[in-house]
Amino acid sequence: MANQRNGSATRKRVIEVTKQLVNEKGFNNTSISDIIQASGVKKGNLYFHFPSKETLGIAILQEAADEFFRFLEASLQGNRPLEKLGSFFDAVLEKHRSAHFVGGCIFGNTALEMADSNPNIARLVEDVFRRWADMIANVLREAQRGGELDASLSPTRFAKHIVATIEGGIMMARLTKNEEDLKDCLDTLRAFLGM
Amino acid sequence: MANQRNGSATRKRVIEVTKQLVNEKGFNNTSISDIIQASGVKKGNLYFHFPSKETLGIAILQEAADEFFRFLEASLQGNRPLEKLGSFFDAVLEKHRSAHFVGGCIFGNTALEMADSNPNIARLVEDVFRRWADMIANVLREAQRGGELDASLSPTRFAKHIVATIEGGIMMARLTKNEEDLKDCLDTLRAFLGM
Repeated sequence: MANQRNGSATRKRVIEVTKQLVNEKGFNNTSISDIIQASGVKKGNLYFHFPSKETLGIAILQEAADEFFRFLEASLQGNRPLEKLGSFFDAVLEKHRSAHFVGGCIFGNTALEMADSNPNIARLVEDVFRRWADMIANVLREAQRGGELDASLSPTRFAKHIVATIEGGIMMARLTKNEEDLKDCLDTLRAFLGM
Repeated sequence: MANQRNGSATRKRVIEVTKQLVNEKGFNNTSISDIIQASGVKKGNLYFHFPSKETLGIAILQEAADEFFRFLEASLQGNRPLEKLGSFFDAVLEKHRSAHFVGGCIFGNTALEMADSNPNIARLVEDVFRRWADMIANVLREAQRGGELDASLSPTRFAKHIVATIEGGIMMARLTKNEEDLKDCLDTLRAFLGM
């Protein structure tokens, strides 16, 4: 029981440290010895929990995905569907502003780093974007049912467009370290939504 | 004269090979010995042309930028401003389709890899996005003057939005290796533009 608790604490610590390192240097550039050094976890113990760097990569993305979907659900707040979406846009801007536009989005970063080289990781990130777009599409459908949004618009396409624009906006703001580019992208989305 | 020609051929060869390697593995993951091996250029000769990996990184980005702006200008073809933009959207989709959605956009990839770690390279990529958005903004202004586009829309913001959406759409299509996500993003842009 005590061992299991320690095991789970080790797992958690390794995931936390690796997420930080991958955010700073990318997945390929983070070595097992970096993780050992930063976490203080012994090599044998690390391999016991994560037999390969890929399993560790998948674990940190799953953890990041859980965190992101909690954030998404918590920020989709409001009385009307478009108000919910507006709150989510505000929360995205605030999240990256408070990180000073450093680090960006772990899914976007991993997408560009691993899409061509690691199909398992690519599938996982693809799934995050898909689930994210599905949740946004549901809000858009709600807005259409309530007459808040033009019924001719395709919720599926527009939801994908929102995800793509946010990812691109985060990328641009990360270069300038300034909120303007991301804010402009979000404001344009608001304009299209008639918000 | 012959030496100068050889020097320039070497430079060109190194840039070409490095661009390919960076596209496949990223900048940080491409080592000087990878470049030496793939190009067949001797180490001393390589350092004569590019004293550091950063100068080489800047050279390949400048070369890629020249190429991209030639592509952008060549694809903005049409009688009306929005027709020009539509041709550019078609050309973007075709470019990535013919690459089977492998490699993505060198500027987006470099943005996410280097934005936090190398300010000189970040400035260069930022400048590419800025020039790209400026050219799109000019086409949008032309469309507004000709009455083709709603005058209340901000050309500067919308141009940035277009760049961000294309970058995000390329990222998503690179994960799925399928044109649908990028096509959906471009079609949504067309809808907003009343095309």
